[in-house]
Amino acid sequence: MAEITKVVLDAMGGDNAPVEMVKGAVDATGKEKNVKVFLVGKEELVKSELDKYTYDRERIEIVNATEVIETAEPPVNAIRKKKDSSIVVGMKMVKAGDADAFVSAGSSGAILVGGQTLVGRIKGVERPPLAPLIPTEKGVALLIDCGANVDARPSHLVQFARMGSIYMEHVVGVKNPKVAIVNIGAEEEKGNALVKETFPLLKELRDINFTGSIEAREIPRGQADVIVCEAFTGNVILKLTEGLASTLISKIKGGMMSSFRSKIGALLVKPALKKTLKEFDASEYGGAPLLGLNGLVVKTHGSATAKEVSNSILQCITFKEQKINEKIKECIQTDRKSAE
Amino acid sequence: MAEITKVVLDAMGGDNAPVEMVKGAVDATGKEKNVKVFLVGKEELVKSELDKYTYDRERIEIVNATEVIETAEPPVNAIRKKKDSSIVVGMKMVKAGDADAFVSAGSSGAILVGGQTLVGRIKGVERPPLAPLIPTEKGVALLIDCGANVDARPSHLVQFARMGSIYMEHVVGVKNPKVAIVNIGAEEEKGNALVKETFPLLKELRDINFTGSIEAREIPRGQADVIVCEAFTGNVILKLTEGLASTLISKIKGGMMSSFRSKIGALLVKPALKKTLKEFDASEYGGAPLLGLNGLVVKTHGSATAKEVSNSILQCITFKEQKINEKIKECIQTDRKSAE
Repeated sequence: MAEITKVVLDAMGGDNAPVEMVKGAVDATGKEKNVKVFLVGKEELVKSELDKYTYDRERIEIVNATEVIETAEPPVNAIRKKKDSSIVVGMKMVKAGDADAFVSAGSSGAILVGGQTLVGRIKGVERPPLAPLIPTEKGVALLIDCGANVDARPSHLVQFARMGSIYMEHVVGVKNPKVAIVNIGAEEEKGNALVKETFPLLKELRDINFTGSIEAREIPRGQADVIVCEAFTGNVILKLTEGLASTLISKIKGGMMSSFRSKIGALLVKPALKKTLKEFDASEYGGAPLLGLNGLVVKTHGSATAKEVSNSILQCITFKEQKINEKIKECIQTDRKSAE
Repeated sequence: MAEITKVVLDAMGGDNAPVEMVKGAVDATGKEKNVKVFLVGKEELVKSELDKYTYDRERIEIVNATEVIETAEPPVNAIRKKKDSSIVVGMKMVKAGDADAFVSAGSSGAILVGGQTLVGRIKGVERPPLAPLIPTEKGVALLIDCGANVDARPSHLVQFARMGSIYMEHVVGVKNPKVAIVNIGAEEEKGNALVKETFPLLKELRDINFTGSIEAREIPRGQADVIVCEAFTGNVILKLTEGLASTLISKIKGGMMSSFRSKIGALLVKPALKKTLKEFDASEYGGAPLLGLNGLVVKTHGSATAKEVSNSILQCITFKEQKINEKIKECIQTDRKSAE
């Protein structure tokens, strides 16, 4: 029998807490036997929500945390002051080895700061990147880094590429994933200073399948599986993808409602369209892992519903079973040895 | 009577030259009386194409240029060596005052280098930005800068904001345009080093309507009219917008063709959908101006057809009639005086 994966879920994080968090925990434990979920948050609130469901009492447990870190709070301060918040309590459980992973739809800033300071980095990892999956024509691509660090150095991007490649291969299941660096042209001599310095370093790596530069136009076409960039660029790519998809879809829906003729047509295309659009729905793919920590931290969308929460919990099982952190440690330490 | 605007069109640039270039020139001169187009390129080739049309011989003139700069050529070298290329000959006409504007679908690199070295910058302009219009839910937004300069400084972004505001107000016709800087969060303290340094400088300006940070998610929603960023970010935004729109549209079309039911529906929604998608078609808006030069240089898409070429020519008329360069000079020089 496989070992149980223990996931701490922030029951208080996100726009839909605790309702959708609790439902996500119930769904995930219903779908998968080898997982236990700790719901961290205000005990009474969480309990009254959980009592609405039938669930395996052995595999969902409430952990009390009396405080909540709000999205608008300055993260460093919030992590330091609110010692009994769901984020701090949950992350400390991972740090102590009482759980394998922490999942939260709460404040990005607090999760990023807490991940680094409370859970801590794997030795040798310079900066832990946040790496969401984004939809492409061919499936998904891992966008790394996407918000954890600004003004990155070439050595950071090199680690992002290697960690991203491991995640994409062993968690998402893409064999020999194509790794590319975001650039403003396909040629090696193009780019800003960071890309120009990073490119030759990536080219030298023997443990990833580096395919060169990728222009932003090619990202939605699925031309690469791991998209390497610094966090500012990654944040722009992630948010523009989300914003543009939702704008276009609402425009198309609006267009279809503009005449009687098109309204009838809209009824007929609706099921086919729904399937297509589902493929471009980020919540299908679970949350974004913060890689390179002593344990897994997953950030879901602030607007996450039970489906995304449940998918994020299930993704923690694969992460543990595939021993991703052991693989990252090995890869980073080989790198350090060869550098010495 | 308004003065005639003289536009040099690179008849050899882009994937569809000379056919679509010549057609674009004929269309533009047919639509608008106050314009004269110089078609620069291989005389015989251009002439045999032009002879297919009826046109006002007073207002379309062929200028011979025996060489062509290819897209793959290193730009600096190409501009220096190919003195009889359509780009060099055309830009020199603008420099000499024989024409007001130069429009090309050719090599971006050569156009950017030639713009700076042959046409030359307006005194005080530190870097000329390339500023395409991108489609939004509410119309269009000007994305500035988008490919001309990498690793920009705060003072460059400040000039981009001011020049972009002038262009958007007087060429596109948006009154008191909202100017925002691309950032990874809405708060003033967020961002990379460049954004953090630039933000307070923009906030101080009295001649633009600065509305603060804009997250990439809000760009397609039309939350700002002038989107300020450095060229690497701008290039990513421009190309991702183009790539994602085309990927989504092809997915939606594919989805509609997936069943008999949806195929019938597709026929009914087609006209409404076509209208919606047209609004997201970049070629509707003409090319991207390279601002801050002693004359106007416009870069159209490499794949530009007659419609985009014609729109780009017509946009030069507004540029001249609205005295955009005089306005830029005045604004930059006021700035320099107040700095002294």
